[in-house]
Order: sequence, then C-alpha cells, then structure tokens
Amino acid sequence: MRRLEVLALEGLPQVGPGDVLAGLIADAARARGPELADGDVVVVTQKVVSKAEGRLVELEPDDADAHRRLVESQAVRVLRRRGELLVTETPQGFVCANAGVDVSNVPVGHAALLPVDADRSARRIRDGLRARLGVEVGVVVSDTFGRPWRRGATDVAIGCAGIAAVVDLRGTSDALGRALVVTEVAVADELASAAELVMGKASGVPVAVVRGVERSWLRPSSATAEVIRPPAEDLFR
Amino acid sequence: MRRLEVLALEGLPQVGPGDVLAGLIADAARARGPELADGDVVVVTQKVVSKAEGRLVELEPDDADAHRRLVESQAVRVLRRRGELLVTETPQGFVCANAGVDVSNVPVGHAALLPVDADRSARRIRDGLRARLGVEVGVVVSDTFGRPWRRGATDVAIGCAGIAAVVDLRGTSDALGRALVVTEVAVADELASAAELVMGKASGVPVAVVRGVERSWLRPSSATAEVIRPPAEDLFR
Repeated sequence: MRRLEVLALEGLPQVGPGDVLAGLIADAARARGPELADGDVVVVTQKVVSKAEGRLVELEPDDADAHRRLVESQAVRVLRRRGELLVTETPQGFVCANAGVDVSNVPVGHAALLPVDADRSARRIRDGLRARLGVEVGVVVSDTFGRPWRRGATDVAIGCAGIAAVVDLRGTSDALGRALVVTEVAVADELASAAELVMGKASGVPVAVVRGVERSWLRPSSATAEVIRPPAEDLFR
Repeated sequence: MRRLEVLALEGLPQVGPGDVLAGLIADAARARGPELADGDVVVVTQKVVSKAEGRLVELEPDDADAHRRLVESQAVRVLRRRGELLVTETPQGFVCANAGVDVSNVPVGHAALLPVDADRSARRIRDGLRARLGVEVGVVVSDTFGRPWRRGATDVAIGCAGIAAVVDLRGTSDALGRALVVTEVAVADELASAAELVMGKASGVPVAVVRGVERSWLRPSSATAEVIRPPAEDLFR
C-alpha cells in the first residue's frame, strides 16, 4: 500500500542568529525521534531559517510606517496594493504578500525577512544532516503564502535540496494508457502543505519529517529554478 | 508526537455512472485496508466523483473545436485566454483552467465535467460511509488546479463534508504569546495536496485516507462557502 507518514519534530530550542539548523535538527531527532533515515524529506519553516541566518530586523518603535517601508525595501515589484497588504515580487522571484516580511513568532518590535537564497539554506541543512547522521534526505524550506481566488493560506516551498520541486509527468501515461494532459505537479509545495498539517501555525513546531516519498523524486533540485513561473509565461503578472 | 498518515486506498474498480462511491470505498477498505476509523479524512478525486455522477460527455469526433466550446459552456467567465488554455470561473465560483473540463483518465473521445455540487458529493460519501461502516469521517473532493506565478499544479479541495475547508486562527496566539497575523489556513487544500502525494497522477488511485487530523477541524463544512474568495475581496479577478 502506498503510504506516507508526516511526523512533527518536537524539542527544537528557540533558534537565534548563527545557530546551525542541521545540528539542532540532528540533536532533536536523536533525542526524541523521529530518527532520520535515507529518503526522508525534512521540511523546515522559513521562520527558523531566517532566524538562524540573522534575517531579523528591528522595527523603529513609534514609527507606524516602518513596516510598510521595510516591505517595500524587500520587493522588486508591487503587483497590487490594498491598505496594509501589498502583493509583491521578491528578489528571488516569488510572488507573495508583503515581500515575505513577517512579524508573527518573532520577538516584539522585530520582523523576519526571507532567506536570501532558500535553496542554499536547504542545501546547507541537507549537507549538515549527511555529515552528522550519515543520511541522504531531501530538504524543503517552506513558507505560508496566500493565493488569489481562494481564501486561506497554504504552505509552499521556497527552497529545496535533494527533492524535486516540480515533477514532470510528460512521457508517462494515465491509467487508461493515453498521454496525460496535466503534466507537471508541484510536489515540493504539496510536501510543504502536508508538513504544515502537523506543525500548526500556533504550536511553534518548525520542522517536520515526511517519510515514504516516491524515490524518483529525490534528486538535485531548486525551488527558484523549478517552481517560479517565468513572467513571459505568466498570465497574472 | 504529532503524526499524520496518508494511505492510498487501492483496489477500487473502474467507476461508472450510477455507481455509489461510498459502497465502492467501503468494500475496498474492508477487502484490502486501510480499515476506516472515526476521525479519518477520506480524499476522493473529482474524476471518480464525476464518473459516478454521470458527468462524462462525448466530444464530437472530427470537430477540433468541440473541446473549446464545451469549456466555454461550463464557464460563467473567462479571466484569461492563451491558445488552448482558458482561465475560467465556474458556476460554483472556482477559478481554474478550462472550467475543470478534463480529458485524462476518461474514455477516449470523452471529457469529464466538474460535479454540479462537490460539497453535496462529499456529504453523500460521508453519509454513505457512516451508514455502511458506522464511522464518522471527513470527506474532501479534490481536483488538480494550476496557480499563477508558480509552475506545477497542486491538488485542492472543491468539496468538503465533516472537515473544515478553512481554519480560522484568529483569537489564537503564536508560540511567543502574541496575536497571529496570518489568521486563516486552507487545511482542506493541504489535505488534498497530501493525498495527491500517494495517489500520483498516473497511477490511477483515486482515493486516499488521511489519519491523525486535528480533531477540532472535524466539523460541518463547505468548500464553496469557506474557500472561495468573494470577488469584492479578490485583487486578481
């Protein structure tokens, strides 16, 4: 039976600048489980990656406009604007609210910026887990994005290493033996969403392990290269 | 440890008009497992729901334009058009490619339309599983939608029963004790995505069971009422 397990990794300490996430994850996995194994996919939220990489900034107190200015400084383009909400394109090419600047689960008076290069962040965690535990895992750095047309946010991948961001089904056929029309599935986004279901926004569990992932998806990868739709192909940019 | 299992339900026969999905799912679960239990969420793809509800139509052979006319007949609005691809609003209020009309995994020369009311389809399956197996499960009817800005499709919910579509975290606080900024999570979409990871587009497994879902999410629900963003709030419609 095809079967997937999604396991919250609990017991991670509060993360601060300079912390080595691979070390903290390895320690938590050894101490409380789940023990990591080859082929696991480790999903890590953007928030702890940003904290470890020193991407927290202080907001000027008593300056109501500081947050907006920070958001604008982090965006290369503003697609839409309504009140406090800006829909922006980030330097990495992601389109999201407020350039990914986030003030929840960070110390009061601070905001967390996106990692500069979340693919690189994912690779570092993957390499660090291999060095510490001798395991080959995939790593997804996830963030919580809203979407047009549908209420509610879902978690998606902003960085990947060792796990495909998008799987191309061209050349495979459907169960009736004909060519498939839908050809590309964003499996890293689906893994990020599956992980979110055990993390919970409010519970402060920033890492989950997905076990049982299709082995052919475990390959060199990049969220920015695979998942960002080139503006020329995009009907809504 | 917070833990979720996602289990493919194998052994479902080919589905045709008039088939009672709850009966087929109950039989397959009894014969091969997973045995269904209270609190499970059963994710069923739109394709088999449409087949069971007789939503297959024949496409006029030798009429290259038949598919486009069918798509236009199923849309209340066309948001964008590029070649064969139309981004449309369906009568239910979903925004998706080609009004949800799909020609993969259906007999040659046919196309599958969306269920008329996938919330009702989900309720029927939920009620049928209660009647047959004595279990209280949530049901999500899923479909594969593309998104702007990001390549690759993900599975989302187009119908729900007994499982929240969107969870409102207003009033809860983050792990540092302050009010959360991101307040709504589309858990039914995340469940649909998690299920897709064990179904696979090409493998023809149209049902999966998600076990271990947060109990407070199991409540009366509706995908159309909860997940569709009202056009007045929508910046991209």
